[in-house]
Amino acid sequence: MSDTKASNRMWGGRFASGPDAIMEAINASIGFDRKLYTQDIRGSLAHAAMLAKTGIISAEDEKQISQGLNTILSEIESGKFEFSTRLEDIHMNIEARLAELIGPAAGRLHTARSRNDQVAVDFRLWVKEELQRIDRALGDLLEAFLNRAEEHYATVMPGFTHLQTAQPVTFGHHLMAYVEMFGRDRSRVRDAIERMDECPLGAAALAGTGFPTDRFMTAKALGFREPTRNSIDTVSDRDFALEFLSLAAICGVHLSRLAEEIVIWSTPQFGFVRLSDSFSTGSSIMPQKKNPDAAELIRAKTGRVNGHLIGLLTVMKGLPLAYSKDMQEDKEAVFDAAETLDLMIAAMTGMIKDIEINAAAMKKAAGSGFSTATDLADWLVREAGLPFREAHHVTGRAVALAEEKKCGLEKLSLEDLQAIHESINEGVYSVLSVSNSVKSRTSYGGTAPSEVRKQIKNWRKRLAKDNKDLNKG
Amino acid sequence: MSDTKASNRMWGGRFASGPDAIMEAINASIGFDRKLYTQDIRGSLAHAAMLAKTGIISAEDEKQISQGLNTILSEIESGKFEFSTRLEDIHMNIEARLAELIGPAAGRLHTARSRNDQVAVDFRLWVKEELQRIDRALGDLLEAFLNRAEEHYATVMPGFTHLQTAQPVTFGHHLMAYVEMFGRDRSRVRDAIERMDECPLGAAALAGTGFPTDRFMTAKALGFREPTRNSIDTVSDRDFALEFLSLAAICGVHLSRLAEEIVIWSTPQFGFVRLSDSFSTGSSIMPQKKNPDAAELIRAKTGRVNGHLIGLLTVMKGLPLAYSKDMQEDKEAVFDAAETLDLMIAAMTGMIKDIEINAAAMKKAAGSGFSTATDLADWLVREAGLPFREAHHVTGRAVALAEEKKCGLEKLSLEDLQAIHESINEGVYSVLSVSNSVKSRTSYGGTAPSEVRKQIKNWRKRLAKDNKDLNKG
Amino acid sequence: MSDTKASNRMWGGRFASGPDAIMEAINASIGFDRKLYTQDIRGSLAHAAMLAKTGIISAEDEKQISQGLNTILSEIESGKFEFSTRLEDIHMNIEARLAELIGPAAGRLHTARSRNDQVAVDFRLWVKEELQRIDRALGDLLEAFLNRAEEHYATVMPGFTHLQTAQPVTFGHHLMAYVEMFGRDRSRVRDAIERMDECPLGAAALAGTGFPTDRFMTAKALGFREPTRNSIDTVSDRDFALEFLSLAAICGVHLSRLAEEIVIWSTPQFGFVRLSDSFSTGSSIMPQKKNPDAAELIRAKTGRVNGHLIGLLTVMKGLPLAYSKDMQEDKEAVFDAAETLDLMIAAMTGMIKDIEINAAAMKKAAGSGFSTATDLADWLVREAGLPFREAHHVTGRAVALAEEKKCGLEKLSLEDLQAIHESINEGVYSVLSVSNSVKSRTSYGGTAPSEVRKQIKNWRKRLAKDNKDLNKG
Amino acid sequence: MSDTKASNRMWGGRFASGPDAIMEAINASIGFDRKLYTQDIRGSLAHAAMLAKTGIISAEDEKQISQGLNTILSEIESGKFEFSTRLEDIHMNIEARLAELIGPAAGRLHTARSRNDQVAVDFRLWVKEELQRIDRALGDLLEAFLNRAEEHYATVMPGFTHLQTAQPVTFGHHLMAYVEMFGRDRSRVRDAIERMDECPLGAAALAGTGFPTDRFMTAKALGFREPTRNSIDTVSDRDFALEFLSLAAICGVHLSRLAEEIVIWSTPQFGFVRLSDSFSTGSSIMPQKKNPDAAELIRAKTGRVNGHLIGLLTVMKGLPLAYSKDMQEDKEAVFDAAETLDLMIAAMTGMIKDIEINAAAMKKAAGSGFSTATDLADWLVREAGLPFREAHHVTGRAVALAEEKKCGLEKLSLEDLQAIHESINEGVYSVLSVSNSVKSRTSYGGTAPSEVRKQIKNWRKRLAKDNKDLNKG
Repeated sequence: MSDTKASNRMWGGRFASGPDAIMEAINASIGFDRKLYTQDIRGSLAHAAMLAKTGIISAEDEKQISQGLNTILSEIESGKFEFSTRLEDIHMNIEARLAELIGPAAGRLHTARSRNDQVAVDFRLWVKEELQRIDRALGDLLEAFLNRAEEHYATVMPGFTHLQTAQPVTFGHHLMAYVEMFGRDRSRVRDAIERMDECPLGAAALAGTGFPTDRFMTAKALGFREPTRNSIDTVSDRDFALEFLSLAAICGVHLSRLAEEIVIWSTPQFGFVRLSDSFSTGSSIMPQKKNPDAAELIRAKTGRVNGHLIGLLTVMKGLPLAYSKDMQEDKEAVFDAAETLDLMIAAMTGMIKDIEINAAAMKKAAGSGFSTATDLADWLVREAGLPFREAHHVTGRAVALAEEKKCGLEKLSLEDLQAIHESINEGVYSVLSVSNSVKSRTSYGGTAPSEVRKQIKNWRKRLAKDNKDLNKG
Repeated sequence: MSDTKASNRMWGGRFASGPDAIMEAINASIGFDRKLYTQDIRGSLAHAAMLAKTGIISAEDEKQISQGLNTILSEIESGKFEFSTRLEDIHMNIEARLAELIGPAAGRLHTARSRNDQVAVDFRLWVKEELQRIDRALGDLLEAFLNRAEEHYATVMPGFTHLQTAQPVTFGHHLMAYVEMFGRDRSRVRDAIERMDECPLGAAALAGTGFPTDRFMTAKALGFREPTRNSIDTVSDRDFALEFLSLAAICGVHLSRLAEEIVIWSTPQFGFVRLSDSFSTGSSIMPQKKNPDAAELIRAKTGRVNGHLIGLLTVMKGLPLAYSKDMQEDKEAVFDAAETLDLMIAAMTGMIKDIEINAAAMKKAAGSGFSTATDLADWLVREAGLPFREAHHVTGRAVALAEEKKCGLEKLSLEDLQAIHESINEGVYSVLSVSNSVKSRTSYGGTAPSEVRKQIKNWRKRLAKDNKDLNKG
Repeated sequence: MSDTKASNRMWGGRFASGPDAIMEAINASIGFDRKLYTQDIRGSLAHAAMLAKTGIISAEDEKQISQGLNTILSEIESGKFEFSTRLEDIHMNIEARLAELIGPAAGRLHTARSRNDQVAVDFRLWVKEELQRIDRALGDLLEAFLNRAEEHYATVMPGFTHLQTAQPVTFGHHLMAYVEMFGRDRSRVRDAIERMDECPLGAAALAGTGFPTDRFMTAKALGFREPTRNSIDTVSDRDFALEFLSLAAICGVHLSRLAEEIVIWSTPQFGFVRLSDSFSTGSSIMPQKKNPDAAELIRAKTGRVNGHLIGLLTVMKGLPLAYSKDMQEDKEAVFDAAETLDLMIAAMTGMIKDIEINAAAMKKAAGSGFSTATDLADWLVREAGLPFREAHHVTGRAVALAEEKKCGLEKLSLEDLQAIHESINEGVYSVLSVSNSVKSRTSYGGTAPSEVRKQIKNWRKRLAKDNKDLNKG
Repeated sequence: MSDTKASNRMWGGRFASGPDAIMEAINASIGFDRKLYTQDIRGSLAHAAMLAKTGIISAEDEKQISQGLNTILSEIESGKFEFSTRLEDIHMNIEARLAELIGPAAGRLHTARSRNDQVAVDFRLWVKEELQRIDRALGDLLEAFLNRAEEHYATVMPGFTHLQTAQPVTFGHHLMAYVEMFGRDRSRVRDAIERMDECPLGAAALAGTGFPTDRFMTAKALGFREPTRNSIDTVSDRDFALEFLSLAAICGVHLSRLAEEIVIWSTPQFGFVRLSDSFSTGSSIMPQKKNPDAAELIRAKTGRVNGHLIGLLTVMKGLPLAYSKDMQEDKEAVFDAAETLDLMIAAMTGMIKDIEINAAAMKKAAGSGFSTATDLADWLVREAGLPFREAHHVTGRAVALAEEKKCGLEKLSLEDLQAIHESINEGVYSVLSVSNSVKSRTSYGGTAPSEVRKQIKNWRKRLAKDNKDLNKG
């Protein structure tokens, strides 16, 4: 998105200046593909080194090319480089400047290469680096969850279904559900990196080349596992972008679910959590008010990522091979989705670290609504040998009585309970408190604090291992 | 989308600086809502005038406020205004500057108003103006079509179904199909303007106000038909943005269909049209090559508009009333979709004006594939009184014979035809030529040149009327 | 979607039987387009009558055709008609049966018509009728809202922003916000009907016809305003389906917002509403639990409608004129979206009629969170003449004191308040109660009960008028 | 989608019968989840066996339960089972019938289980099996491509960019581009299976259970790698459905690209391929016409799959944990996307096997448009030592001359060429023919027939290995 003045020009009659201005506006990509400058220069450096190694260009040419490209890199990073819309894209901008700097040798850089494989390698490098950024960011988010889960492995809260209190769970267990989600996201990121780790450089326009290139050499230099295997596919393929957008959309769904919970938990009615000042905004005259802006924005930005996914799927639908200009629409969608996802993860990580938990409010809510009714039924099956169906019936009567007496199940007297079913004894009270309820659920993956700690421990090991891979990768 | 350096900062560890930086990055909207500066200032001017008129503020205050706002407008337009991310959004940026310029009176501007109704009026004004721009742009596009249709009202081309030659039509008739489509788009634009022509100003935070405001006065001053009728809906509603995106998506579909046709027609295999240099790109070593870049980009950008539509629909799904911060995600989607659609229409208008038609190639293709077989069948029904089923059968045999003789139907001798069915006479040849075929299809809305001219004439009248409304509106 | 057995066949190796089975499975539309049988027969009856009137077929033929078609209609409605997948679609199924019933005359029905304009007229008629159904259903929904709004025009509840209590509003006012939304939906429905009210019949394959047809006659017979104006557009156009899906998606957003509110309001934490048994499900052992299933499903089904919209937009993208087989994908999307939207509206109408309001809980929540702080600030501006900024400052101090004393603003003593600012007097208490707060907001469209009643009255008039149109239309 | 009568009832006033009918219509899932009957019964059998093994129920009870479930399986498969909408879903339908068949023991089956983990295991099993079906189907499609690629490894065709002839390639090479795409799809399928291969059974309602269950035993019995690790995530998670829809959408994009090419290649203007009768439809009176219906439908169905993806992403957005009724919307989207994708792949496999190639037309088109101009430029760089820029310039002049003489580059005389640049010699002609052009492009992954064969060979090995895994898996 351009700045105010540029866009005002656009709306205000820029097109009056005729077809050339319209074509430039619709055709030029330098406004967004300049983001690829490091990737473009790295690709060219690797290509030049290979051309020299294989004798396609001279060592002297390569030296000049490398020096020129490094000069351009400095110029861009120091803000001295002048980008030109007339030169359409990042490749042409750099190429033209290289020619200015080193003369004819610049032309030799383009031997056995075309803009089609050049943009493919630039963009693939960028997406790969973004996936690595997300891998790292998800690592940080997972760690934040594990730390808070450990702190609250035994903090009781209501477990909801249909947003109605169902059974007590621990807050640590609830947080660990998100660890599973973001853990899956991270594994999707790694699968995507593995799948796209092939170097497009050398596919040329679409047919490969007759020059004696060494595509394995450039692939290695750029950190790819191997070169791609089919030159037509290489310049036609944007699967890596689509797969990135897909996994971003799924990760966005997870973030939006937690964001929604934070919004609801922050209401005065729930009062389960209190956001730090950093992630909320206040009101000058209502000091008690804290608007959960960051959570709302995370929730909303899911739509944006979904939009980019559907946008690029639509662009690629029905596109004949090999390169079509339509594919130029890939970059803005991916850049914005990446920036959005990075921001969503960073903001969620910050919120999770800072969020203040009101354990008392959680516990109180956990005990309301006869949330241990299932525990009573299970006790009747297990201890009194009742068939499940009859156990349910008996439980229903106990709940009705408690409702009538306006008390919790655990406050009913033994006489009252025995009047409902004679097999009930003192032992039943052990399952009627929320604390005992959560403690009892020791099945694998259950909410018992002991189980929650076990899963935290396992995840800490997995996280350490994954982070180690990261540093190697 | 921010520039290279800003976004590199973003990726490179900006978030290391802590939660405040992340919150600023996710929360601030000044990066995009600055586009609303004229709308924001116009809204404030109208509000101030109303406050003075109703005696809520003094005439003197109003004078100062107006002068201050006009100063700010000049500052922004001359590029002297310094936007601050810390001040979050366009409203706060202008408010802070106003306080600097005029002191305490600035505070009185915000009586009986909140940011919720302020952003609603700013954004609604912007969308309304964009709809008016599209209304005008579609008028230009329709005119371009009518001019080319008139030129080619009798130029014969193949009518396709399944991209296979079906029956001959005229190129003018084909163009007039697009006139119908873009005519419907324009009527959708006008319905949308009519529906959203209600002024949000005065709804305040969400409940209205106790000050004796005159919302009809501000509505009128800002060019709205009337004020909105429910203050909660007013600050919660983004229907006008969703409706804009919906109509943009449908219009995008129309543009993409023509773009696809242009891509196909430009292939050497079809050769129906030749794009002007302005709307195609060439190749330095293949001078005959003309890549239809503008058409491809128009086709692709459909995906982008669809993405923004689905993005905002997703943002708004399940949002409790009244204002939630999620709604801040509305602007970038709409701004980018608007810029995209404006560009698509402008580029298509340019292409249609410039495109060179190869009438000979069209006519040749129209005559191939026994495209007048239906005419023969119809003739047999009409002139020889055959039932339709038998007529089809006879025609099938004639086509088979022509295929065997490797000639067109019109080249079969009368003997040959009579051998197939005795009732055939000389008269049949009048329907076997593509020119006669198209001439014969005189049903209302049919492809006969006489019908095409009639529809062009009617559309010219409608266009003149619509353009007149535009100038009044 | 087929039944269990059919689909098991599909998965289990049906395709083993070879290409013909696959082609039949992908190509045949009779599985879903049979829904168009009445429209198809009505279209054929109108066409036959026109052919006879214009002398293209004989009166005798028309009589036989009409009788045959009416027989088929009875056969279908009584379940005796045998649909055949081999005959692909509804048109061929009916045509084949007609030939069986009346012999050669059946063939004459297809004079001056093709399947392309036939399916266009069938589908357009169906969509038009669906739009009329929604028009009526929205009328019922609006009435349900108006009735509940009248009942609760003065019931106080918290007005939320960011799901945090902001200012008190009335529940009637909140409901009237939805009246505005569904009122806009209804006006979109009516615009869509108006725009698509053109009859495709007579466009034939794509080029029109040479037979002396009277397209105005068939248009009138089928209840269309007029015939379409361009035969190529006529068979290529699916705007009416896209526009239906767009308005359905926007209406779905509105329904999802209220559904979300109902889910939140039904939690024990909020307790604002209690759903009737009809629209919730319970639990055998937790009798107090009421899951808001209908609300959740309405919220979810928004995704389904959005999916169908994006699906058809994607199908139509880049499709060359005129008819392509791709367009066969239009029907299932529209049929399912229609069935879904009908159900969503019916379920919401039922819920709104039945929902039980806990006015006490609403009022209590409305008073918490110093929700009248803005009223205090406004009072200071209005009555004590303070500049807005200072008024805010004073209010902040009052809120801080109330927070310290753990009481509401209205419980602070006059001494306390005067200690904060000497200008405060007894009059201030009139604005500090939630009831007085809502009463004071009398600006046009504001939440004051008097304003809410005014808007209810206006909407009752508009509804009566719209429903009258409906009965005429 | 229900049958004609049912849906007419729906539209025609079914809702008049009151809230209960509406609730049943919106709430019941038996209409579509009956598809899960085998998965539901298998899950219950595994659960019962585990309950008996761990002593939670008796061996006798388990025997009765197993027999009862197997009876129900037979009843469903033989069509004797009566599904009831009143019983809502597949679980309740089977449970009720089990109670009829075996009495009280049926109730014991539900110990330590709830509908939440039951539906999760049913649906996950179904999606896993669908992924395995697609794995197999993609294997068949890849084999079809490899066979045709081998046949045409040296068949020359034009390589397109922007749908304009760019450089000659081989048809085998073009087909191998699709092998890469569908190979990636298959690897995505396998990653998805691996990631979702965890058993939900035993998570119970959301908190796990206190019964001494053995979740590893049920996981193994149902063919899962291991049980899930967090009970809340287990009942909240639909990632496996979203990941399936994502990969289906990307695979759909690939199918749509080839489908578009087939539509274009089948036009008389291109004439590259001729579809078999099985995958096209004809016209009774235009026997030469073959409409590529199957290709068009494959192209279109991409929209449908995309729609389901965005639909479910929208459903899951912002859903609080754990189970919400919204999630019931997951099944129809997945079932229809699965059926659609299966059909698309099957139809494409059939088309690829059958499609008739017009090698002469391809070769002719490959030679037009000076498609070997790049080869001339490369020759000048390589053999005559010209800098790239000068080589381009010289080539441009040669093309201009050929265009003037209306001949191909290879028809220019040596004198003519030497007049343009003296360094040109006889050797140049070896690169000017399309056959030599493709032969020369021997870079890794290039279009040279030798390279194409190498890649075919490699892929045959990979396919054999993958298919072997399949049989093991």
